[in-house]
Amino acid sequence: MTTESALSLDPVWERLGRGRVIDLAQPMHQGMPQSANHPPFRMVVERRHGDMVRPDGGSAANELIVTGGHVGTHVDALGHVSQDGRVHGGMAAEAIQSNRGLAQLGIDAFEPFVGRGVLLDVARLHGIPVLPAGYEITPEDLEAAAALAKVELRPTDAVLVGTGWSRLWPDHERFIGRAGGVPGPGEAAARWLVDRGVRVVGGETIAFERLAPGAGHATLPVHRVLLVESGVNIIETMRLHELLDTQVAEFLFVLAPLSIVGATGSPVRPLAVIGE
Amino acid sequence: MTTESALSLDPVWERLGRGRVIDLAQPMHQGMPQSANHPPFRMVVERRHGDMVRPDGGSAANELIVTGGHVGTHVDALGHVSQDGRVHGGMAAEAIQSNRGLAQLGIDAFEPFVGRGVLLDVARLHGIPVLPAGYEITPEDLEAAAALAKVELRPTDAVLVGTGWSRLWPDHERFIGRAGGVPGPGEAAARWLVDRGVRVVGGETIAFERLAPGAGHATLPVHRVLLVESGVNIIETMRLHELLDTQVAEFLFVLAPLSIVGATGSPVRPLAVIGE
Amino acid sequence: MTTESALSLDPVWERLGRGRVIDLAQPMHQGMPQSANHPPFRMVVERRHGDMVRPDGGSAANELIVTGGHVGTHVDALGHVSQDGRVHGGMAAEAIQSNRGLAQLGIDAFEPFVGRGVLLDVARLHGIPVLPAGYEITPEDLEAAAALAKVELRPTDAVLVGTGWSRLWPDHERFIGRAGGVPGPGEAAARWLVDRGVRVVGGETIAFERLAPGAGHATLPVHRVLLVESGVNIIETMRLHELLDTQVAEFLFVLAPLSIVGATGSPVRPLAVIGE
Amino acid sequence: MTTESALSLDPVWERLGRGRVIDLAQPMHQGMPQSANHPPFRMVVERRHGDMVRPDGGSAANELIVTGGHVGTHVDALGHVSQDGRVHGGMAAEAIQSNRGLAQLGIDAFEPFVGRGVLLDVARLHGIPVLPAGYEITPEDLEAAAALAKVELRPTDAVLVGTGWSRLWPDHERFIGRAGGVPGPGEAAARWLVDRGVRVVGGETIAFERLAPGAGHATLPVHRVLLVESGVNIIETMRLHELLDTQVAEFLFVLAPLSIVGATGSPVRPLAVIGE
Repeated sequence: MTTESALSLDPVWERLGRGRVIDLAQPMHQGMPQSANHPPFRMVVERRHGDMVRPDGGSAANELIVTGGHVGTHVDALGHVSQDGRVHGGMAAEAIQSNRGLAQLGIDAFEPFVGRGVLLDVARLHGIPVLPAGYEITPEDLEAAAALAKVELRPTDAVLVGTGWSRLWPDHERFIGRAGGVPGPGEAAARWLVDRGVRVVGGETIAFERLAPGAGHATLPVHRVLLVESGVNIIETMRLHELLDTQVAEFLFVLAPLSIVGATGSPVRPLAVIGE
Repeated sequence: MTTESALSLDPVWERLGRGRVIDLAQPMHQGMPQSANHPPFRMVVERRHGDMVRPDGGSAANELIVTGGHVGTHVDALGHVSQDGRVHGGMAAEAIQSNRGLAQLGIDAFEPFVGRGVLLDVARLHGIPVLPAGYEITPEDLEAAAALAKVELRPTDAVLVGTGWSRLWPDHERFIGRAGGVPGPGEAAARWLVDRGVRVVGGETIAFERLAPGAGHATLPVHRVLLVESGVNIIETMRLHELLDTQVAEFLFVLAPLSIVGATGSPVRPLAVIGE
Repeated sequence: MTTESALSLDPVWERLGRGRVIDLAQPMHQGMPQSANHPPFRMVVERRHGDMVRPDGGSAANELIVTGGHVGTHVDALGHVSQDGRVHGGMAAEAIQSNRGLAQLGIDAFEPFVGRGVLLDVARLHGIPVLPAGYEITPEDLEAAAALAKVELRPTDAVLVGTGWSRLWPDHERFIGRAGGVPGPGEAAARWLVDRGVRVVGGETIAFERLAPGAGHATLPVHRVLLVESGVNIIETMRLHELLDTQVAEFLFVLAPLSIVGATGSPVRPLAVIGE
Repeated sequence: MTTESALSLDPVWERLGRGRVIDLAQPMHQGMPQSANHPPFRMVVERRHGDMVRPDGGSAANELIVTGGHVGTHVDALGHVSQDGRVHGGMAAEAIQSNRGLAQLGIDAFEPFVGRGVLLDVARLHGIPVLPAGYEITPEDLEAAAALAKVELRPTDAVLVGTGWSRLWPDHERFIGRAGGVPGPGEAAARWLVDRGVRVVGGETIAFERLAPGAGHATLPVHRVLLVESGVNIIETMRLHELLDTQVAEFLFVLAPLSIVGATGSPVRPLAVIGE
């Protein structure tokens, strides 16, 4: 009833105030690397200062934004993917989808995450800043990366898998990897993550999948395992390199996608808070 | 260098794991109440499950989103408003704006906030669930609301001002208040907040201003004081009623708008974390 | 083989050059009256002169446009409407529609019209500039309007039905007629037009239907009769008042909607050419 | 006053009814070749048949369209381009532009064209179906093409210049010509057209300019000569190959861009009507 009940004693914000907040989102701008399967991001300035001036000399600028739900750093809703006509939980996709989007399993059904984040840095494990294009991350990689960082996964964790790929963001063509491929987890690695009971996983590439050079997205086995079979949301196109450079493997992680009713995904600004 | 350095001992996420995360964003959907000054929000489903099926039986749904930066629950960038041609810090608006948006003071310049949030519930102070339309919140109101909640403002706080107005969200016309007006801080209340050194402020109405019935947005004094004169960001159209109902006045507050380069504002999903 | 074969002798353009071209489209701008069932029109200036200047001093302005296919003066494709799951010709709507639009009966399947246009001015028939809201045009009205103008309908004609409603365009609320209704043909009038073998019909209201005050679009019998049962395209929201004022009932009519593959409709700029 | 006055005797539509209407617009669809300087065209189906069924069994499908004004076959408004800060007529661009677009010289100021069209087929002149990439059309080419077709230009004509480039439309990369260049008029050819007093000119490439291989749009001399200096509108990305194949050089030409208030250009569906 009184405010004393709120996270009393040594308030959590005082400790966090001594921490460092790391931005895990890529900046969104026209022309940024994104999947060709989704509407291209475009922000257009609609009014500039001076276009409309109020009687007292005030003026306001604004913009119009056109975007897909899966551009920039974003979260995949569970209902984004179906397998053989069924979404997570076994419902027919037809039963939950309409012109208004997803009546269930949409991004608005994602409960914002505030909790333990763990980073498994596979690039560091291999002693390189960026994994090779087309490299398939294995369960052994994840196991070894956890051991190297002396960290254990626990149920309900958010697990971020480091490939170093976000370092390539400025090189659009290479980042997208249509020709050259991108590194990512294989189906076995996805199952390894699921077996540990994680709540959400994230990576730096446009799709959290290993793409062989020139192969494209013919199949998306990791999406199937995580979203459809296991109910684990995926964060894609994350900006992890700053966090990778800290070599911190455990942190407070916050993930709060926009609450767009019925959407299959949403751009997001994930944050890691680490100690000094 | 090692992971032990990360917010070690009694990890913060363990304590937060015992807390309750309160969603402070209104759900975004076509037809939701928003300002007529900004592009209307619209999400259109682009592909449904079954439209494109991969060889292995997988299918993905997606959407196109058209929106303004100032729709739904959103943050105003400092450069959103100018006064007499000048933005915060005294620069000419002309010098920082272009067709690419704001080169400075855009929403991408807003450092994500993870820290102490304080709620000043003026509706509760007056013993009513919702302040009357057109009510002007005064410094005395804020002072008394703080006293009632036994909470003190500190520099760098995020301060949310409760009016109960988010309870009216389903009644679009009344919520927007074009005819009837909306409650909000007057210029004096804005200065009172600034004098306490707050980092960011937020409210439930479409504009963090008191609007007299039928008067509209002829002038926006609170925006001028906060954004232009003081460098304090504003969160608007917040969903505060769930937090108001807890009567908790101090909490961990997280605010991470999308990192849209040059935008004057961004939709956002603010969170409060309170103790059990 | 040689150019002499082209509409030789007294070339048609010489005669048309002595005619008068009447613009039958309403101007498109943000905030114009349109159906709430369709995405609102919005043009946003993207680059202004001076934003990007080429080495030689040249600069170009441009825009982004968001619109529905059924806003402003527009043509309904035959596949826009279905009845009991079937489109014109009896095909199942399911069989021709997908996320890419209509594979058949889309606006791109509409063959541009260059031919005889006939105006049946029902407002003039009743001696008033604008028919009353909610007025139902009958076959007798059309018959009498043709007689008054001494004109006969022929197969493949384009027939425009004058109500005078385009004179109300500046009064958005009245024009849309949600509360007050709009005049238009009833089902019997639609059948009368079909029986004369017309190729396309057009009117001034947002929907080529009679809407009773407060009744809205619960059913659209005229659309069913024309589009689904008869394969007659409909032009809506036409700007007819200038043509009405000429009292000319026969003219060259040109209708060339945008060739948007798979769209159910398209904005258009219809023209009438009348003699001196 | 009576209808008899309308283009009486041997009505023009009867003669046109014996003609052939040739569609001069490329079909608009997502992924079609367009300039990277303009918002990409995208049509998204918003409602499909069956999504919303009226009580009587009727249903309607619709779409949302995002586009630039200069995509697909389109007309450049005179105010699209400025030189040294001035638009056609010598006005300062600043004086006519705002966030609402062009107050003058916008596409809504273009008077729809119904008149004589002339085709100068430079590809045919050179005995090839498509001019080489990077080829500069000269005044001599135009002169010779007119002589070959036994046609003379007259003031107020619409002149279309054939390069055969629209045959390459399906080969996006080659059509756009970023690497390889595109054929088009040089500055001298533009002046030659202006000297003949033409009203509007059109071509098949994305920009009515000659682009040297790899050179891009560093300068646009033909746009400057036509739009800024001479007040001659330009039609771009026309689908001319069907007309080229007829070898008809004189025809009725209709050009009616959308009446978008203040826009710098508009998609359009130009038509040619030729004799049997």
